[in-house]
Amino acid sequence: MNKVVLTGIKPTGIPHIGNYFGAIRPAIEMSNNPEYDGYFFIADYHALNFIKDPNELKELTKLVACTWLACGLDPKKVVFYRQSSVPEVTELNWILNNVTSKGLMNRAHAYKASVDRAISEGKDPDFYVNMGLYCYPILMAADILLYNTKLVPVGLDQKQHVEMARDIAKSFNKTFGYTFVVPSELISEDVAVVPGIDGSNKMSKSHGNVIPLFCSEEELKKYIMSIKTDSTPVGDPKSVECTLFKLYRLFATEQECMKMAAKYQAGIGWAEAKNELFIAANNYLKPMREKYNYYMSHYDEVLAILEAGEKKARKVAKETLQRARTAIGL
Amino acid sequence: MNKVVLTGIKPTGIPHIGNYFGAIRPAIEMSNNPEYDGYFFIADYHALNFIKDPNELKELTKLVACTWLACGLDPKKVVFYRQSSVPEVTELNWILNNVTSKGLMNRAHAYKASVDRAISEGKDPDFYVNMGLYCYPILMAADILLYNTKLVPVGLDQKQHVEMARDIAKSFNKTFGYTFVVPSELISEDVAVVPGIDGSNKMSKSHGNVIPLFCSEEELKKYIMSIKTDSTPVGDPKSVECTLFKLYRLFATEQECMKMAAKYQAGIGWAEAKNELFIAANNYLKPMREKYNYYMSHYDEVLAILEAGEKKARKVAKETLQRARTAIGL
Repeated sequence: MNKVVLTGIKPTGIPHIGNYFGAIRPAIEMSNNPEYDGYFFIADYHALNFIKDPNELKELTKLVACTWLACGLDPKKVVFYRQSSVPEVTELNWILNNVTSKGLMNRAHAYKASVDRAISEGKDPDFYVNMGLYCYPILMAADILLYNTKLVPVGLDQKQHVEMARDIAKSFNKTFGYTFVVPSELISEDVAVVPGIDGSNKMSKSHGNVIPLFCSEEELKKYIMSIKTDSTPVGDPKSVECTLFKLYRLFATEQECMKMAAKYQAGIGWAEAKNELFIAANNYLKPMREKYNYYMSHYDEVLAILEAGEKKARKVAKETLQRARTAIGL
Repeated sequence: MNKVVLTGIKPTGIPHIGNYFGAIRPAIEMSNNPEYDGYFFIADYHALNFIKDPNELKELTKLVACTWLACGLDPKKVVFYRQSSVPEVTELNWILNNVTSKGLMNRAHAYKASVDRAISEGKDPDFYVNMGLYCYPILMAADILLYNTKLVPVGLDQKQHVEMARDIAKSFNKTFGYTFVVPSELISEDVAVVPGIDGSNKMSKSHGNVIPLFCSEEELKKYIMSIKTDSTPVGDPKSVECTLFKLYRLFATEQECMKMAAKYQAGIGWAEAKNELFIAANNYLKPMREKYNYYMSHYDEVLAILEAGEKKARKVAKETLQRARTAIGL
C-alpha cells in the first residue's frame, strides 16, 4: 500500500514567487512520486482564524485553488479538496480534544509567541489568543489522522505540529485500541531560498518584498526593474551572489546560468541583467500564468475538480471517523 | 413562533431520586408548556471527557434515554436526540472557536476549579485539564446556538455557560452579521431539595448517598430501611424536618402529608415511618419503573424514537450551520 502524504495549503494570501519555489513546486514534485498517495487541502477552516471577511475567504480560496492547478498539481494523481468540504474533520477534532492534555497545547510555538508578545506589551498573556489559534494543533492532528497519513512534509517551523499529532494519535490508540496511523514529519532538506526584491535574504509577504506569482507580464517587469542593486557601473564584473542572479538561477537552466555568470563577470549592466531576468522569469511563468488565468475565468471547472476530490476525501474520512466512533462507543 | 428551550442530559451516571425531583421532573413539566419547543439531548460528545470505556458510554446512554422516556418525556412534544447524532454541532464548535477569546475560557468555573486543585497539590496548574474540559463551554454554545435556542433552563452552577454562549453568539453576530439567536438562562427558582439517605442535605452520587430511581422494589425497600434516623423512641413526637419525612413529602399528596405529619406528632416508630415511605415511594415509582424496564428490554423502540428526533434536530442544525457558513464565507 502506498504511503499517504498530506499537504495543507493556507488560503491566507496571494501566492508569490517565494511560495512557488519554496513550497508549491517541491510539493507538486513529490505528488508525482508513484510511491505516495497525495492529499492536498485548502485549509479554509484554519483561515477563519485570520480572515473575517466572507468575500475575502472565497476569493483567496479560489485564487489558491487556481494557483496549485496552474502550477501543475494533477487532480488525477492526488486528492485535492477544501478542508471545509469534509466536515468530518471537525467531529474528529472534538473527539481528539478528549485525549489531548491542555499542557500539550500550552507548549505550541505559535501560542507561546502570542503570549510573549502580549507580556512584552504589558497585556494579559492571552490578549492576542482566540480559541481558533489555541486549538489549531488539534484540528491539524484531525486533518492528519483522518486520512491515515503516514508523512507530512513540513518546514522546521511546523515540525512541532506533526509531533503533536503523533502524540495525540498515540494517546488515543493507547486508550481505545489501535485506531489511527501514527504520522511522521518529512522535513524538506534543501528548500529553495528566494531573496526579496528589496535585496534581503527572504521573499516574504510580511516583509512586503514579494513578486506575485501570477501578476501580468507588465507588472512582472515592473517588479523586476524595482529590484535593489548596488552601484557597480557597467563594465565592472558583478557578483553572482546578488539578488538578480539568485532569482535568475531559479528560472534558468544550468547552462543558461553558466552563460549568464560569464556575462556578470564581463560587466553586464544592471538594466540588461534585469531584462534578462525578466525574459527568463516570464518564459518560465507564462504557460502557468495562462493556465491560471484560464482557471480563474473558468472557476466552475476548478470547483468540479475540487468536488470530485472532496468525494474521494470524504469517503476515507467517513471510514476513519467511524473507526474512531466505534472505538469510543458512539 | 414558539421559544426554543434546550436541555442537555449528561449520560455520566445512573439516575437517582435526587436527579428525578431536582432535574428530570421539572424539565418534563416544562416540556409540556405549549409555548415552548423543547429540545432534549443526551450529551454523549461531552461525556467522552469522563468516560473512556465504549461499553460504559453505550450503556449509560441507553439507561438515560430509557429513564427520560419512562419519566414521561413525550417524544411527540419534544425533539429528543443524542448529541453525537447531529455532528453539525462539532463543525459549529470549530467555527465558534474563531470568535471566542481564550480569556473567556480561562474564566470558566469548572476549569478554574481544576486549576485550583492542581495548584493546591503542588502540581502544574493544567495537570488535570484536558482539551475536552477546557473547550466544553464552546461545544455547549454550539449546542445552544445550533437550534436557535432562546432559553436554557439551568441551575446557578451552569449559569456561566449560558452567559458564555450569549457572549459568543454576540461576538459572531457582530463580526459576521446577525446569524444566531441570542440565548438566555432560565434559572429554576424552587428546585426540590432531596436529602441523602445518610441524613445529609443533598442526595448526590459523589456523596454515595443516593437511591437509584429505578432499582427493584426489594432494593428500594433496602435503601429506605437504611436511612439514618435519630434515637427518638416509639411514642415520642418526631420532627417533620427529618430525612424520612422530607422524602415522604416528595412522593405523597398534600393530604397524605398532613395525615403523616399527625402520625409523626403522635410518635410513629421509625420502622413504621420507613415502611410508609417505602409504600408511597413504590406507588409513585412503580408505573415509571415498569415503563423503564419495558424500554430497557425493547431498546430498539427507544432507538427508533431517538432516530426520529435526530432527523428533526439535524434538519434545524443543517439550516443554522448553513447560515453560519454563508456568513463566514464557506
